[in-house]
Amino acid sequence: MSFNTFGHLFRFTTWGESHGPALGVVVDGCPPGIPISAEVIQRDLDRRKPGQSRFTTQRREEDLVRILSGTFEDEADGLLKTTGTPISLMIENTDQRSKDYSEIKDKYRPGHADFTYQQKYGIRDYKGSGRASARETAARVAAGAVARLVIPQVKVRASLVQIGPHKIDYSRFDWNQVDQNPFYCADPVAAQEWEGYLDGVRKAGNSVGAVIEVVAEGVPPGWGAPIYGKLSADLASAMMSINAVKGVEIGEGMNAASLTGTENADEMRAGNQGPYFKSNHAGGILGGISNGDPIVVRFAVKPTSSIITPRESVTVRNENTDVVTKGRHDPCVGIRAVPIGEAMMAIVLADHYLRHRGQTGRDGGIGYDI
Amino acid sequence: MSFNTFGHLFRFTTWGESHGPALGVVVDGCPPGIPISAEVIQRDLDRRKPGQSRFTTQRREEDLVRILSGTFEDEADGLLKTTGTPISLMIENTDQRSKDYSEIKDKYRPGHADFTYQQKYGIRDYKGSGRASARETAARVAAGAVARLVIPQVKVRASLVQIGPHKIDYSRFDWNQVDQNPFYCADPVAAQEWEGYLDGVRKAGNSVGAVIEVVAEGVPPGWGAPIYGKLSADLASAMMSINAVKGVEIGEGMNAASLTGTENADEMRAGNQGPYFKSNHAGGILGGISNGDPIVVRFAVKPTSSIITPRESVTVRNENTDVVTKGRHDPCVGIRAVPIGEAMMAIVLADHYLRHRGQTGRDGGIGYDI
Amino acid sequence: MSFNTFGHLFRFTTWGESHGPALGVVVDGCPPGIPISAEVIQRDLDRRKPGQSRFTTQRREEDLVRILSGTFEDEADGLLKTTGTPISLMIENTDQRSKDYSEIKDKYRPGHADFTYQQKYGIRDYKGSGRASARETAARVAAGAVARLVIPQVKVRASLVQIGPHKIDYSRFDWNQVDQNPFYCADPVAAQEWEGYLDGVRKAGNSVGAVIEVVAEGVPPGWGAPIYGKLSADLASAMMSINAVKGVEIGEGMNAASLTGTENADEMRAGNQGPYFKSNHAGGILGGISNGDPIVVRFAVKPTSSIITPRESVTVRNENTDVVTKGRHDPCVGIRAVPIGEAMMAIVLADHYLRHRGQTGRDGGIGYDI
Amino acid sequence: MSFNTFGHLFRFTTWGESHGPALGVVVDGCPPGIPISAEVIQRDLDRRKPGQSRFTTQRREEDLVRILSGTFEDEADGLLKTTGTPISLMIENTDQRSKDYSEIKDKYRPGHADFTYQQKYGIRDYKGSGRASARETAARVAAGAVARLVIPQVKVRASLVQIGPHKIDYSRFDWNQVDQNPFYCADPVAAQEWEGYLDGVRKAGNSVGAVIEVVAEGVPPGWGAPIYGKLSADLASAMMSINAVKGVEIGEGMNAASLTGTENADEMRAGNQGPYFKSNHAGGILGGISNGDPIVVRFAVKPTSSIITPRESVTVRNENTDVVTKGRHDPCVGIRAVPIGEAMMAIVLADHYLRHRGQTGRDGGIGYDI
Repeated sequence: MSFNTFGHLFRFTTWGESHGPALGVVVDGCPPGIPISAEVIQRDLDRRKPGQSRFTTQRREEDLVRILSGTFEDEADGLLKTTGTPISLMIENTDQRSKDYSEIKDKYRPGHADFTYQQKYGIRDYKGSGRASARETAARVAAGAVARLVIPQVKVRASLVQIGPHKIDYSRFDWNQVDQNPFYCADPVAAQEWEGYLDGVRKAGNSVGAVIEVVAEGVPPGWGAPIYGKLSADLASAMMSINAVKGVEIGEGMNAASLTGTENADEMRAGNQGPYFKSNHAGGILGGISNGDPIVVRFAVKPTSSIITPRESVTVRNENTDVVTKGRHDPCVGIRAVPIGEAMMAIVLADHYLRHRGQTGRDGGIGYDI
Repeated sequence: MSFNTFGHLFRFTTWGESHGPALGVVVDGCPPGIPISAEVIQRDLDRRKPGQSRFTTQRREEDLVRILSGTFEDEADGLLKTTGTPISLMIENTDQRSKDYSEIKDKYRPGHADFTYQQKYGIRDYKGSGRASARETAARVAAGAVARLVIPQVKVRASLVQIGPHKIDYSRFDWNQVDQNPFYCADPVAAQEWEGYLDGVRKAGNSVGAVIEVVAEGVPPGWGAPIYGKLSADLASAMMSINAVKGVEIGEGMNAASLTGTENADEMRAGNQGPYFKSNHAGGILGGISNGDPIVVRFAVKPTSSIITPRESVTVRNENTDVVTKGRHDPCVGIRAVPIGEAMMAIVLADHYLRHRGQTGRDGGIGYDI
Repeated sequence: MSFNTFGHLFRFTTWGESHGPALGVVVDGCPPGIPISAEVIQRDLDRRKPGQSRFTTQRREEDLVRILSGTFEDEADGLLKTTGTPISLMIENTDQRSKDYSEIKDKYRPGHADFTYQQKYGIRDYKGSGRASARETAARVAAGAVARLVIPQVKVRASLVQIGPHKIDYSRFDWNQVDQNPFYCADPVAAQEWEGYLDGVRKAGNSVGAVIEVVAEGVPPGWGAPIYGKLSADLASAMMSINAVKGVEIGEGMNAASLTGTENADEMRAGNQGPYFKSNHAGGILGGISNGDPIVVRFAVKPTSSIITPRESVTVRNENTDVVTKGRHDPCVGIRAVPIGEAMMAIVLADHYLRHRGQTGRDGGIGYDI
Repeated sequence: MSFNTFGHLFRFTTWGESHGPALGVVVDGCPPGIPISAEVIQRDLDRRKPGQSRFTTQRREEDLVRILSGTFEDEADGLLKTTGTPISLMIENTDQRSKDYSEIKDKYRPGHADFTYQQKYGIRDYKGSGRASARETAARVAAGAVARLVIPQVKVRASLVQIGPHKIDYSRFDWNQVDQNPFYCADPVAAQEWEGYLDGVRKAGNSVGAVIEVVAEGVPPGWGAPIYGKLSADLASAMMSINAVKGVEIGEGMNAASLTGTENADEMRAGNQGPYFKSNHAGGILGGISNGDPIVVRFAVKPTSSIITPRESVTVRNENTDVVTKGRHDPCVGIRAVPIGEAMMAIVLADHYLRHRGQTGRDGGIGYDI
């Protein structure tokens, strides 16, 4: 994908900085005739919104989305529907409290994009990280809400599966638990334990990383394409484009290196509805194309570099200095990445659905003709 | 990227199947006036070529590359140079020994793309996996050799760093060792130990996965772009598009989840030539843009599913069956992925170099004006 | 180009309908550090704005543009500058007077996109033509104003050169006249004569077509690229994408068919600064690449189909009916296409400038090194 | 489109120079399961082949096409079919007679791309114009032959309708005549008259331009898309990318400027199968979307600049000189542009068919559901 645009047939472009008047997204290529509403988009945005618990930044962002174009009320049923033209979604920035930027204006914060933006562009919007702010992810969550409407047969869900060194126990995995704790975690016991751990991290003025697992169920076989349009390659690009992500895995992921061929390859059996796989080490993708099993993606979010502990750095004039983050930040930005990962999964799948339909005229594999 | 094309300004399109008359690549957007020769491309291809040791398939593929277009002899110095027009490279398939495909023709091999190609396209080239064959990677290695010429100031190297569960010891890491053992491994002790291990795997009729680390030195700060054009996102897409890859990491990768903010963020100091980083947990990328440190990418290759051990599967008529791979295959396809990973790194960097130069008019960061 | 996006390195995406809350454009890939202001964009928008004379629609559209992102105030000089990130421009629709759409809601207006949108999408925003409204062109004029800033050395101007069957006399061509008459016409005598003619057309409840000529001076040799990225091909696409355009010409255009080789090919002579052309039948483009002469493009705009004369048509229920346009429309939409043509010329050139710089590292031809 | 690639879902990339070993095209995104053969592609290539009459260059080019990838023999019916993977087509250059290039090597031929290629790239393949050679069009004709197979319900035909100042009489238009004369002209009387005219031009050592009209019948309503993906915009780009083309028209084309709204807008009537248009001034496209009527495109080809009459020019060292073309060239290159125009029409339509199907799930308009 390129610059600030992602996708081919279902594609979107995001814009906006953290401390400008607004941010937004233009979704292009959406199929026409799909019922839509600001409410359904808002629902996903609210899950990403900060200030939901003591473990996410206390910054208040209303994140109210407005639909500015691309929809029309169908008189036949009174429903607002997509028209097939660009859907422009805008979120105004309401919490731009006047703040003293004199410190970060002149310093490069370690682990942030300050230095690289300055190097690349020679000019840097230092207010709230400018374009590099995680607020951009609100725009993609909005786009992801539209993407979900394009593939209603697909259920996309995510869970935090690791925070710092603490992993969940998959034997306790229960999707119903995800909205029952402040971590979007499917393992209720782990979520309980993490509370104390993360309180400690927060009080120590530190931060910690996390791993998010995103699962898409209901994807038919046949989505994706060789070779550079592999479903897995687009998912890797999608997840790696999220702020602070440093690793992406499909199915067994990095662990596939440790396995033998007998352990890793998913055996097949004849089923009533066609062949099925006895296991899903592949994460639902073979040769870059979906195989009908759930698509399983994990990605690692690094600990935020905005911490209260002083860090060595330099000024824009190349002088040694220290940086201490003040203000409102997340001890674990990975928590809020859960709905973002869902959004990117939905976006990639919606795009591949349309691309597959374009090339083959079918909704999915041979057994899935329209 | 899309279908069989990768890249934006430096872009290439590959074509060809394992058992057709030839395969090839068209490289478009290459800067003009760059000295080039079939020999320099051949050198990279020879490193990927099978049959180099007992640990890679004994299939004989000459993999001789021909330059069919896009070059011209400069009369001033007698050198063959790129003209800025499409460079077409072709490799003929010479080892298409007539083979009995009757078995795999009717069966889906577990872990392969047989089932998904059949589902997607309704037709499948079962000879040597058709388009899903790893022979496609020869085409990208050829494209990568051209990419290297575009960024001669950048040194791209790779090493196998894990085979099965056995990792290298980074304290012994020495680039000079890479070409001294059959594993392209920078740790000579590990390479020695792996010989016995992999012999065992091979004799057991099994296979095993691997992790490859690719490092690019000499990349100036400033390459890459927000948000969906992040250098990290394109690298993730590039590596995940390689056959059998299931995970991609930048810098700390998945391990970043386990770290705290104090551990992970690279502190900065004022240097004589400008700011520098005291560590490289970031893998040379911040906010999707290179920071001047080495770019470090790792990817995991799954164990090949083509093994001598019988595996449960189904026929194309949805009947239960067993599959046993006969013929010539790699016990660890990860070994040959080393030059492929280098090629993809070079390709992504060449593309981002040109994109950065297009937008800013500079070769790199503010200190790197042309 | 694709859907609602145009361009490669300098690229923009437009959104919005005629009667929604707003319309806008996101400009991506703009070089950083360029001084910009809402005023400079507004200046171009004001030239496109309706209601400037009795020859354009009396609809009142303030067309006030807001910059929502992508800029930052440079403290060094106090100027607002581009940051290299997406520039989001929004224009609110202020003149959405409540109107009775009951007639056009159920009828297909001849010559409009009503029937084709309904066929394609199965749903149609009938208010003011929805996405097919010429109001979309405000967004591209805004993008064009940004493009001009990217190539300040290039002067892009346009003139109406034909209205109905009446052509200008090129011997009277004077760029200074363009803003002195309501037709943006460089021939003051023709402009005078057209007044009476167009009054007659308007009073007859009819409309008429026009031809616009756009000229770019200061383009160095070397912009453009073979084969499908030809400067001429992108200009043709750009102009043909404007509402109501049915023909595009470069240099001699359709007339080139009538010429002989001796008449048409521009001869060259040695000049002090290098070779120059004795004539410009080519319109400044040879083999898809600029040759240093002015780029000359003409395009024909059809007469608007919104006229007061009753026209035979059908209802959405396939019943015969008549359509009579009421309300505010232009007798010659071609007049307002003058600044739109300039905008598209500037956009194509800015994009090719960056693409050329990306591939070659130069601003123009060999004599134009940075 | 970009560089040497055209199209989105149905896309192709051409490569090769006039005097290299071969030229070719990679067609990507073709739907799977379509019967194909080298013969069906060869048929279109043979129509473009030079040396068919005394009015085209006597150069002998066999132009034999080979299919190198992307097809497979379906055992069910024994037919060779597309597999959905890249189709690589190659044509070897057989008539590279050793020639003395010493003259054009050092001179810029007026009207050719010699000067602009040298300026852009700083290096120029002067043998037979290198990449700027019209031989590139063989590659697109091959791609067009594949495109036709994707939309078998659409009939794409073309006719020469003007040569020099001499136009056909549309009252005599008869598609059956096109292959009965050396001009691919649907008006047999005009074709007869043109023989003497063109003989005169040829004997005078001169050349002349032409206009080609391409018509596509059987296109359902609904193909195309606002705003920058308009069917008309893509057709304009496609035709303008052909060598020597200087103007493109849809329907009334440039003449639309001279018409009034009452004359130009096609009225509609209720028909048994839905609404129909009483005329086709629109050329089958409204708002960038097909309306079910034949798509009508015309383009003007300039007279070739390679003529026997001496022309003033300069050397690569900026010295005045004369250029006289020797060797084998066409007095009217427009004749051979007829099958090329057909190919580009087929390619644009095939791409838009797939794009429409991707977004809407339908083959055409509302009445054309799959």
